[in-house]
Amino acid sequence: MEQPSAAVSLASSFRADNNMTTKVTVAPNGLWNLDSLGILDNIRKDSKHLLITDKNVEKLYLRPVLASIERAGHLVHSIVVPAEESSKTFEIYARLVQDALDYGIDKHSVVFSLGGGLVSNLAGFLASTLYRGIGLVHLPTSLLAQVDASLDFKQALNFSHGKNLIGSFYPASHVVIDPVVLRTLNPRLIRCGLAESIKHGLCQDSEFLDFVMSHHNRLGEPEFLAETVNRSVKMKIDMMPDSLHSDREETVKQYGHAVGHAVEFLSGGDIFHGEAIAIGMCVSAEIGKLMGVTDEDTVDTHYRILSAVGLPTTVPYEQSLGDIWNKVRYDKHFLSDRAYTGLLRTIGVPGQGSADHHGYWITRDILFRAIEANRENGNRRTY
Amino acid sequence: MEQPSAAVSLASSFRADNNMTTKVTVAPNGLWNLDSLGILDNIRKDSKHLLITDKNVEKLYLRPVLASIERAGHLVHSIVVPAEESSKTFEIYARLVQDALDYGIDKHSVVFSLGGGLVSNLAGFLASTLYRGIGLVHLPTSLLAQVDASLDFKQALNFSHGKNLIGSFYPASHVVIDPVVLRTLNPRLIRCGLAESIKHGLCQDSEFLDFVMSHHNRLGEPEFLAETVNRSVKMKIDMMPDSLHSDREETVKQYGHAVGHAVEFLSGGDIFHGEAIAIGMCVSAEIGKLMGVTDEDTVDTHYRILSAVGLPTTVPYEQSLGDIWNKVRYDKHFLSDRAYTGLLRTIGVPGQGSADHHGYWITRDILFRAIEANRENGNRRTY
Repeated sequence: MEQPSAAVSLASSFRADNNMTTKVTVAPNGLWNLDSLGILDNIRKDSKHLLITDKNVEKLYLRPVLASIERAGHLVHSIVVPAEESSKTFEIYARLVQDALDYGIDKHSVVFSLGGGLVSNLAGFLASTLYRGIGLVHLPTSLLAQVDASLDFKQALNFSHGKNLIGSFYPASHVVIDPVVLRTLNPRLIRCGLAESIKHGLCQDSEFLDFVMSHHNRLGEPEFLAETVNRSVKMKIDMMPDSLHSDREETVKQYGHAVGHAVEFLSGGDIFHGEAIAIGMCVSAEIGKLMGVTDEDTVDTHYRILSAVGLPTTVPYEQSLGDIWNKVRYDKHFLSDRAYTGLLRTIGVPGQGSADHHGYWITRDILFRAIEANRENGNRRTY
Repeated sequence: MEQPSAAVSLASSFRADNNMTTKVTVAPNGLWNLDSLGILDNIRKDSKHLLITDKNVEKLYLRPVLASIERAGHLVHSIVVPAEESSKTFEIYARLVQDALDYGIDKHSVVFSLGGGLVSNLAGFLASTLYRGIGLVHLPTSLLAQVDASLDFKQALNFSHGKNLIGSFYPASHVVIDPVVLRTLNPRLIRCGLAESIKHGLCQDSEFLDFVMSHHNRLGEPEFLAETVNRSVKMKIDMMPDSLHSDREETVKQYGHAVGHAVEFLSGGDIFHGEAIAIGMCVSAEIGKLMGVTDEDTVDTHYRILSAVGLPTTVPYEQSLGDIWNKVRYDKHFLSDRAYTGLLRTIGVPGQGSADHHGYWITRDILFRAIEANRENGNRRTY
């Protein structure tokens, strides 16, 4: 395949509070041109480096990516993991550590992640723990990873009790986002990425929602995807706080995630992350309505936009209220007998739960009533 | 056993650069009085907490410690691990995660470590990765942990390739140091702790070395131990940098550790950490002499003080130069074909290797000659 040239359409950076900076480069055809983007300049040629990818992405992009890193004179060893959420486990992590040390990774080595959120989470946790933290470069290939996972500091593994229970806060030194690779993404994964972009639109920017609505039947168009990536990256970076534990940004980033994670986990992999978050946001809207925080139009907008792009909006009937509550209990934000979640006042305007906290404390009763309302209302609506 | 009362002799605090502060309390009988030291005030009664200890410490101090935490109204589940370096593995860590989640640990829970460096490292890594970081309180019971491991941000697990290859930087919120418990410590472990204190003396404070010399035949005296703890904690806190990766402090804290870690690892557990560091410091002195950095008197002082307190000073003959080099290669500070280590100009005055770095780059040849000189000189000296 001929090597296309890269044009950087957006380069930005933000600081994590442990004095590390993440540089974000949006560059069409960037994956074919890593050697010309300047991101490899500070990486040591004396050290060996590691690239983690999954079986699906391997076939499509591993060769050009390795070639463009090697052209810059670096030695890279690649490891391919199964393209499944079950790769985000201790067992796979332990094997990656073993491989990395066998290969001769040292404290100046860099871990590249090439793939979606699962690869970036796995590679990120690996990089954060090898020698207590080595270099990390994300090359996200899914829309979800491009607009969300790769920009975040949150690295994680799943555990039998739930998703992302083990992890660390660790920023990448560079993120290179190439929207051209989205053309090979299947429509379901495009929708999954859009769920996180729509989350930012719901919390921060109603115009972005209008933009998505006006393209809802042309989601695969390269121009739409490139523009969605650019806008989403900006919205996301605006929510990257100076402090790792800022409550305001956290409630936006976690909007819909408490219930979403439970739904995703209980589905055993049938419901993807973005789909589960879409459902979780609709439940959050119902919670907000029940608690008198969210207005009716805003609730309606949740169902309308998510349905328009083909995302699910209701909690599956086969998931019992009790099972969902049990999973929500293991959510990071759970406290004693209440769940914690952000709520919207209206589109673009998050509510503030209390003087101290931006989120709201949700009882089991409110959650159950919200899920019942979601099942009833979600199914009644047609758009 | 009657509950003795606690007197706080030193309370100090320092900041880690991720906006977390470590409060250090030196309090005789503190372990019997955790409820009266103010350290439990900010811990949530709604959450369940975890205490990690080892089999040796369990027998001596687990009951009074649990009692004093429970008197403050907290629920604590304790887990006892074998009192061996082999507990610092993935397998044990994975089991601790499982136990913690089974028990209902949430993001507001606190992990207490009660024991020596192995327990504080294991508990620290656990706390740093559960929910991406929960509360951590160290209750160090060995001299080594009291003057070194518990104050550091460095959490770690061992791997088949070497010690501490997996880990994180994560500060405890509180460290409670009770010198009274040192009375049950066996003399070998007292000497091991002294090795780290002497390291700080060699790099920072010649008066501390005089103090140790004047007590070298009364190392078990409670007054000597209490004073050693107070002085050592101060020297150590002076070396806790604002930035996690400050080279100046790091070369002091790691003095003698590159070779020390190799010697410790190759001994298969026969040589304890402090003993290996004692040997490593003597090798560093020989390296410094070979490189024209360290004066002869300073080299001599290394052997004299370490021998005086009964610590080993020479690399065992059964460890081959090649094996040591192979282990040093996996040291965090190794770069391409050179090891990196701090060196002393004279007592209390570290050298500066280059404009950029406080440490020095050591070739294989220099290291081999230094080990040979160490074996020859160390054995010839008698004090």
